[in-house]
Amino acid sequence: MKYGIAIFPSKKLQDIANSYRKRYDSHYALIPPHVTIKESFEAEEEDLPEILEEMRNVASQTSPFTMEVYKFGSFHPVTNTIYMKVRENDTLTTLRERLNSGKLEHHYDYQFVPHITIGQQLDNDECSDVFGRLKMESINHEEMIDRFSLLYQLDNNMWTVYETFRLGKGE
Amino acid sequence: MKYGIAIFPSKKLQDIANSYRKRYDSHYALIPPHVTIKESFEAEEEDLPEILEEMRNVASQTSPFTMEVYKFGSFHPVTNTIYMKVRENDTLTTLRERLNSGKLEHHYDYQFVPHITIGQQLDNDECSDVFGRLKMESINHEEMIDRFSLLYQLDNNMWTVYETFRLGKGE
Repeated sequence: MKYGIAIFPSKKLQDIANSYRKRYDSHYALIPPHVTIKESFEAEEEDLPEILEEMRNVASQTSPFTMEVYKFGSFHPVTNTIYMKVRENDTLTTLRERLNSGKLEHHYDYQFVPHITIGQQLDNDECSDVFGRLKMESINHEEMIDRFSLLYQLDNNMWTVYETFRLGKGE
Repeated sequence: MKYGIAIFPSKKLQDIANSYRKRYDSHYALIPPHVTIKESFEAEEEDLPEILEEMRNVASQTSPFTMEVYKFGSFHPVTNTIYMKVRENDTLTTLRERLNSGKLEHHYDYQFVPHITIGQQLDNDECSDVFGRLKMESINHEEMIDRFSLLYQLDNNMWTVYETFRLGKGE
């Protein structure tokens, strides 16, 4: 089964992201707007208790933090993806490291750029047009993040939240 | 903000439900397959802590239970909805009552029929055709339910899980 870990921001920020995603994001209907913390990974259901325990440990050791979205970005030419950039932040970086090491080891070939995707699988022209417009726009949003979510993927590629983990709350 | 409470069944049961939903359910892209425990309700964000506390109390007082899906049903002619029927069960009934009374009071004009919707907003002919075929089919599925979820609705009508509540786990 395929799992992933993400932060879902407030309704307000999700609504802003969706105003772009409905036009530009091929995954619009598959998952609400989110910051990916751990890319999709395969796990057996029998390994789930250990994964959950580790995630609870990480959550209890992490304090709620302020997340700031401050500009638009693009991964072009690597992929034709456009996103809202989340400012680097020690708590978020450490959270991401903890959820991708030890029992949750995950190897990445690229550097972590925290973001909320608002467009993907665009063709070259559309990507550069849309990003060209967006990078002139300003965005400035701050909010408290106090939880993250473990999701699994259904056969139709949509994602379901299995469990939420509140930061700083040991169980 | 609009909230709701639902149980998301296993991936296996969700995949089965989605095999019908993709053709017959107008809400297919808005929310994964689920059993509604509390219909959508309006709440202010400032009331959320009290709602969450009450939900945690209910979760801690409820034991995990076996959910059985045993046949197809339809709400026609009230609404042209087709569903997988969940067998009545004291734990589920009590859970639903607790999440709709006291601080979570919710008034319903109809009796609770636990179900997973697989088709809705069908026209009369399609509803009777599809249900006519499905009621000849057998379905028999049992699984353990050990959690429920609080969701909120985005401006595009899609739902995001805010928090999951594990049954029998007091915090």
